[in-house]
Amino acid sequence: MERIKPRTLSGFMELLPKPQMQMERIMETLRKNYALYGFTPLDTPAIEDAQILLAKGGGETEKQIYRFQKGDSDLALRFDLTVPLAKYVALHYGELSFPFRRYQIAKVYRGERAQRGRFREFYQADIDIIGDGKLDILNEAEIPSIIYRTLSQLGLKRFQIRINNRKILNGFYAMLGLGAQAGEIMRTVDKLDKIGAENVRAILVDEAGVDAASADEILKFIAITGNNAAVLTALEGYRGRNAGFDQGLSELEAVTKNLSAFGVPEENFRVDLTIARGLDYYTGTVYETALLDHPEIGSVCSGGRYDNLAEYYTDKQLPGVGISIGLTRLFYVLGEQGYLNDALNTAPADVLILPMTDDLTPAITLATMLRNAGIRAQLYAEQKKFKAKMSYADKLGIPYCILLGEDEIAQGVVSCKNMATGEQITVAAADAIQTIQAGLDAANCGTVIHDHT
Amino acid sequence: MERIKPRTLSGFMELLPKPQMQMERIMETLRKNYALYGFTPLDTPAIEDAQILLAKGGGETEKQIYRFQKGDSDLALRFDLTVPLAKYVALHYGELSFPFRRYQIAKVYRGERAQRGRFREFYQADIDIIGDGKLDILNEAEIPSIIYRTLSQLGLKRFQIRINNRKILNGFYAMLGLGAQAGEIMRTVDKLDKIGAENVRAILVDEAGVDAASADEILKFIAITGNNAAVLTALEGYRGRNAGFDQGLSELEAVTKNLSAFGVPEENFRVDLTIARGLDYYTGTVYETALLDHPEIGSVCSGGRYDNLAEYYTDKQLPGVGISIGLTRLFYVLGEQGYLNDALNTAPADVLILPMTDDLTPAITLATMLRNAGIRAQLYAEQKKFKAKMSYADKLGIPYCILLGEDEIAQGVVSCKNMATGEQITVAAADAIQTIQAGLDAANCGTVIHDHT
Repeated sequence: MERIKPRTLSGFMELLPKPQMQMERIMETLRKNYALYGFTPLDTPAIEDAQILLAKGGGETEKQIYRFQKGDSDLALRFDLTVPLAKYVALHYGELSFPFRRYQIAKVYRGERAQRGRFREFYQADIDIIGDGKLDILNEAEIPSIIYRTLSQLGLKRFQIRINNRKILNGFYAMLGLGAQAGEIMRTVDKLDKIGAENVRAILVDEAGVDAASADEILKFIAITGNNAAVLTALEGYRGRNAGFDQGLSELEAVTKNLSAFGVPEENFRVDLTIARGLDYYTGTVYETALLDHPEIGSVCSGGRYDNLAEYYTDKQLPGVGISIGLTRLFYVLGEQGYLNDALNTAPADVLILPMTDDLTPAITLATMLRNAGIRAQLYAEQKKFKAKMSYADKLGIPYCILLGEDEIAQGVVSCKNMATGEQITVAAADAIQTIQAGLDAANCGTVIHDHT
Repeated sequence: MERIKPRTLSGFMELLPKPQMQMERIMETLRKNYALYGFTPLDTPAIEDAQILLAKGGGETEKQIYRFQKGDSDLALRFDLTVPLAKYVALHYGELSFPFRRYQIAKVYRGERAQRGRFREFYQADIDIIGDGKLDILNEAEIPSIIYRTLSQLGLKRFQIRINNRKILNGFYAMLGLGAQAGEIMRTVDKLDKIGAENVRAILVDEAGVDAASADEILKFIAITGNNAAVLTALEGYRGRNAGFDQGLSELEAVTKNLSAFGVPEENFRVDLTIARGLDYYTGTVYETALLDHPEIGSVCSGGRYDNLAEYYTDKQLPGVGISIGLTRLFYVLGEQGYLNDALNTAPADVLILPMTDDLTPAITLATMLRNAGIRAQLYAEQKKFKAKMSYADKLGIPYCILLGEDEIAQGVVSCKNMATGEQITVAAADAIQTIQAGLDAANCGTVIHDHT
């Protein structure tokens, strides 16, 4: 038979079992945390009508999208989870209750040029809260507090959620008479981290048509830094000159206050006037999340407030706030930077049962006991040398082996070996289960991410 | 702005929040059960190189596949999870330990003609055990026992896993001198349930070139029914005439014996000589699963033993055994037939917190307490009339509301309303949490599926 060389497409993450288990733990932590805040899981198709996905149209999206015909249908793979959400909410509006809170952890597709750390298929983990007509500002504090709780439970410590408000930015530029250019200016200022203040100033003056005095004002404004109280105090100095600015500042103050009430420590969130988010649809609060020890990675979790989620599909006004973790990229970065906790049990089973008799009934009964106790048990009945069986358990990192021979069966006991310590005990099955459960509990108390601080 | 009418493509399941929550519970039950048997979760790309996916080539698959170009690449969406597994195992052979047990619950794509109950995007939930060179027969009993446990935990009762062995069939046809036609005969016999014995006989004689006497022998053979012991006894009558038959019978006896040891009651598994599975790659044990009250649905979970998983990609001999639940179709059928338990809590939250004060700090603190206790809590801060807030909780089926006004805060209590009974208690937050947890535990003890027996 002629064989085809197996390969996985470049730009597509395909993990080996051990890292896959770490990824699963991360996703489970995300699901659990999102559910604790009243978000309902959604699952929309990966394929949509191309016309619908591209309703907004234009730009990079259209070039990157996977689009194809099947029969008469013009189809495309989703490139994010926000457009499908907009479609969903517009389509099922009458059957939903608002505010509508949903999470979705799913793959999206972008046919970008493949390069290291860039993926064409990747998970996004999104939470959004959609209001009908209105949406209370409290939600804008709750969203980053969920991210704080989730990242902390994963074991991450040195991260910072950075918060700003587009109304403050728009209001400030309006004060300078630069309201019309505000969008372009913000996109430039957004690059501050990457290109530095001097280059930002140059682009503003040379390309955005900002006069030198205003450019200085802008740089002075975005240079307002310090702890949150200091930044808010500095911003109070601008109050009274633009209604939008004043509203944005009040919102930012409310978000900051409530973030404290949610228990987010100040070291993990920071008002940052340079954050604008390049995309046009944010209208109020905006978020980015930095790994403090790896600023070069950029934001691992971003989002914000928008006034009109589904304007391409419905005349209903549906404001919302949401945030998205680029999960595949984050996982890749965590692995690259040595953040994944290798001490955590990633074996497919907790116990490998090695039957030593022809009749497998006692081994099967024991496996059922273990499974009923919530212990992951694998029966190993292959005809191999004893050493090969032990080596199998070792390679997979299975923490316990149970040997079951004629003697054990006759005496109503099992021989249970702790693979880490080498210690072997011969006890009743119920006692072995207790020992194993205690050992597993101790081993499983770590987090997926091991932040070196 | 011109609007595009939102729609979801036909043949693509997109659930509302309540059924989605039921689907999530089913998937969680599957994941938990598969993990208990030592299966590791895998996640392969939805897009693969078309040449690799179609290595086996030909037939219906090629017509149904979603295949498209991107740049120079000839791409396709996976149409099952077995071909990607074969690729994975061949590609990562050196980094895996065998037997390799994996589960994968993921979407696959087939561009079939859309019709009611047929899906173009659907979940398959697969478990497979892959050996390196050899694989013990015990695995062929364990696989259906996992399905028994999983379906039972979901609440299904009236189902039957039907088991046969291709070696018995091949051996039997060899006895009749029909070895060369065995494949065609089995595909015909496989239709017995659908077209009846007379039509099977007619096709065998008219199209498969079977003589009348042999056709009668075949019909007599597949008419062997009764309990498992009776069928096995009848089969023993054929022993000694064909080595393959004898081996298949011994395997079937071993599988039957071990299924009992695994605790699968005889009413839930049955030796059935009409089961052959049309696909060529099964070589030993084969499985189908029927819903006894809905035979018209066909098999909801099928699989079997194969001798060579990845022959298109590697010269390694990789025998395996696996089974697959057509999850989307099963879910659809369960819904259609009224099997989904509507009494189960499918609300996005367990508690809706209604703050009655301007300062939201006490409400936020309470929400954090609830979440830390594992209770899903939603803060509802929207400016709405009290009645509208209650109606929101009612519509979503949220079981408890907590009211928090100045009086409660001053007295250090909360007012907690059970939405089902209307009962309201005013107690300390810790006591409310206890009451809520007890209520939730009682409400959550049901199963997702409600089998009417």
